[in-house]
Amino acid sequence: MHEIHVGEDLRNKNREIAAENRDHLSEHRIVTLNLMSAPGAGKTSLLVKTIPLLEDKYRIGVIEGDLQTNRDAERIEALGIQVFQIQTGGVCHLDAAMVHSALHALDLSEIDILLIENVGNLVCPAEFELGEDARIMLLSVSEGDDKPKKYPLMFRESSVLLLNKIDLLEHVDFDIEKAKREALEINPSLEIREVSCRTGAGIDEWAGWIERFYTERKGS
Amino acid sequence: MHEIHVGEDLRNKNREIAAENRDHLSEHRIVTLNLMSAPGAGKTSLLVKTIPLLEDKYRIGVIEGDLQTNRDAERIEALGIQVFQIQTGGVCHLDAAMVHSALHALDLSEIDILLIENVGNLVCPAEFELGEDARIMLLSVSEGDDKPKKYPLMFRESSVLLLNKIDLLEHVDFDIEKAKREALEINPSLEIREVSCRTGAGIDEWAGWIERFYTERKGS
Repeated sequence: MHEIHVGEDLRNKNREIAAENRDHLSEHRIVTLNLMSAPGAGKTSLLVKTIPLLEDKYRIGVIEGDLQTNRDAERIEALGIQVFQIQTGGVCHLDAAMVHSALHALDLSEIDILLIENVGNLVCPAEFELGEDARIMLLSVSEGDDKPKKYPLMFRESSVLLLNKIDLLEHVDFDIEKAKREALEINPSLEIREVSCRTGAGIDEWAGWIERFYTERKGS
Repeated sequence: MHEIHVGEDLRNKNREIAAENRDHLSEHRIVTLNLMSAPGAGKTSLLVKTIPLLEDKYRIGVIEGDLQTNRDAERIEALGIQVFQIQTGGVCHLDAAMVHSALHALDLSEIDILLIENVGNLVCPAEFELGEDARIMLLSVSEGDDKPKKYPLMFRESSVLLLNKIDLLEHVDFDIEKAKREALEINPSLEIREVSCRTGAGIDEWAGWIERFYTERKGS
């Protein structure tokens, strides 16, 4: 099915297709965010909580990456927005070519903000640009505060780190200051926010970040 | 660094080396378990809790797989047992060749049970045999009860599923009966156990499973 040490050729090819995706999205004045995390960190739940806060003002589209099910896409589709499901057939990340196909299937003239949910994996997605404007990473506090040091590439490649499931903080051994400090050592420009998709804490502020990012990129 | 769609050749080569590892381990009467999970599900914590329950009776060795740190190996080394660190340099799983090198570095005549901690990833490790006697998968309840259907290969390839962090059950939306049922639909012979590395719940019973498995394989 995959893998290891194939290296530069493949990544260069991916980068070319990602640049095409970026041009294509830019022509349609679409701002695109690539959401990455380990399995179960809450990417789909984040989308379900965030989209209703944005959809009065923006037309939202979603690309869902999954190994083989369409469960996440069904959760998003219930919100009544455009969603395209990529089933990777076991491949452990999205790549630019998969997203390229998705862009042809979506009606881009009807989208302002495109949210891409990557495959749940802290390693491989970080190595494959998709044509996004920014990468957003979720880390749930139940995963442990050692993750920045153990998976540095994803922290380095992201613009925003959402520390999710903060409602669990009192029940797990997670040193939030240590996690933030070590994430910032890897990526000093990382914007770190605390959220809980379960309680809704921090979600308004996160939606506000997306609005500001959209305005910076495309004007209001 | 790596990639997709390389396919059969690579997997056949891996399978050959895994068979060599298996022969080599068998000559030394070593029982080997391959621990797999998403990042942060608690593999290292499980080892730290389990090894003290076994080391009076068995000589334990550990191979630690990590992208680039040796933090987990340091936690294991503090237990005073043989540990070999594989740093994969960004590769998202262990393969049989990496384990082959580790076997040459360990003193196998001083090991009865070898515990291999794979890289934290729910996708790729399941596709690479290492020469193990059994695969053990951890799923923490904070990751969500949809994981069996979303990552079926790992559930299919494992002999034991440890549902970890059950102390968090009352704080998360995890339907444990649904997770068990859907895991068993994928793999009817899967042995499912509930544990908490934080409270110690179920750890004695899990160590007991390892003892019985050792006895079945090697005699007492």
